[in-house]
Amino acid sequence: MLERLEKQFTFLKEMDKLKGVLRRTILTHDPRRENSGEHSWHVAMVAMILSEYADESIDVMRVVKMLLIHDIVEIDAGDVYIYDKEAQQNKFEDELTAAERIFGLLPEDQAEEFKALWIEFEKKETPDAKFAGTCDRLIPLLHNYWAEGHTWQEHGIGSSDVYEINSCIADGSSKLWDEAKRIIEESIECGYLPSK
Amino acid sequence: MLERLEKQFTFLKEMDKLKGVLRRTILTHDPRRENSGEHSWHVAMVAMILSEYADESIDVMRVVKMLLIHDIVEIDAGDVYIYDKEAQQNKFEDELTAAERIFGLLPEDQAEEFKALWIEFEKKETPDAKFAGTCDRLIPLLHNYWAEGHTWQEHGIGSSDVYEINSCIADGSSKLWDEAKRIIEESIECGYLPSK
Repeated sequence: MLERLEKQFTFLKEMDKLKGVLRRTILTHDPRRENSGEHSWHVAMVAMILSEYADESIDVMRVVKMLLIHDIVEIDAGDVYIYDKEAQQNKFEDELTAAERIFGLLPEDQAEEFKALWIEFEKKETPDAKFAGTCDRLIPLLHNYWAEGHTWQEHGIGSSDVYEINSCIADGSSKLWDEAKRIIEESIECGYLPSK
Repeated sequence: MLERLEKQFTFLKEMDKLKGVLRRTILTHDPRRENSGEHSWHVAMVAMILSEYADESIDVMRVVKMLLIHDIVEIDAGDVYIYDKEAQQNKFEDELTAAERIFGLLPEDQAEEFKALWIEFEKKETPDAKFAGTCDRLIPLLHNYWAEGHTWQEHGIGSSDVYEINSCIADGSSKLWDEAKRIIEESIECGYLPSK
């Protein structure tokens, strides 16, 4: 077997583990927790369907590529809850170590390409990364709304936290942030989200 | 709320159901059955990582797009086991009805685009669709090999079935078909797959 292909197969086998990393979000039609593999698919769909709302010119399929790989580091570093502010601040070093190991399973050219794409996503400086971030923040907000605030209530999250954490949706799309604000307001009115 | 965005959100909510469609494949690190949402992510990763082995010139990210949506019809039509030859022959009509309903949740331009892409995938006539088919057939073969033949044994599948069903891997990539044949041979030698 070619050494290059063997490395690629080893990486693809490793990917299976992302399906075992559980997020806080629960599904809409089943109260089980979502895993990061299926989330990565869903958020890639979000980017394809909602790309027209990006404020800046983006390469949609590059955004999709970024989103397909954005959570791979969680295989080693685990999923950090978005409302756990302290853990969020300290997670980059762990995730960088994870990126080195996991992308490092690939042949060197692919390892470099995917690591650079992941760092671009994390930095949120380019139009593609900003819009990828918008999609990645929007879908759990929608899930929480669809599940009548289940995860917010479980973790004692209030509306000011939700506004603060999700405001970066505006960095990639002012239209989707307007819509997100409408959803947050409706969640408060429906009693899904405590106003605090 | 804009009518267009409302349709797009309805479609994205519907997507959550694909995470509840179970395939025959089991995971590598957990003996639970894989769902079609996480499979769609994994197979998109396969296309990105192995695109260099396509026999014809392909648009990799178009293949990825095709693979992200290729199983959406299963929300209504269910997953049909690849080795169930009779059900495979009869599934297209059910899946077409599903495609009409599910993609029909989107605004008309997007509904048409995705339905056409799904039909292209099903027909396997273009280089992009052939390579997408290669990836979609290769990953369950790898899963079966990694899981020491679990699903083959559970369903009484023998090597001649595996050769026949997977030979279309060659339509998109002769190199990956060579490698698939090596994996099948090794599976027989290791006792994962009965030679029959």
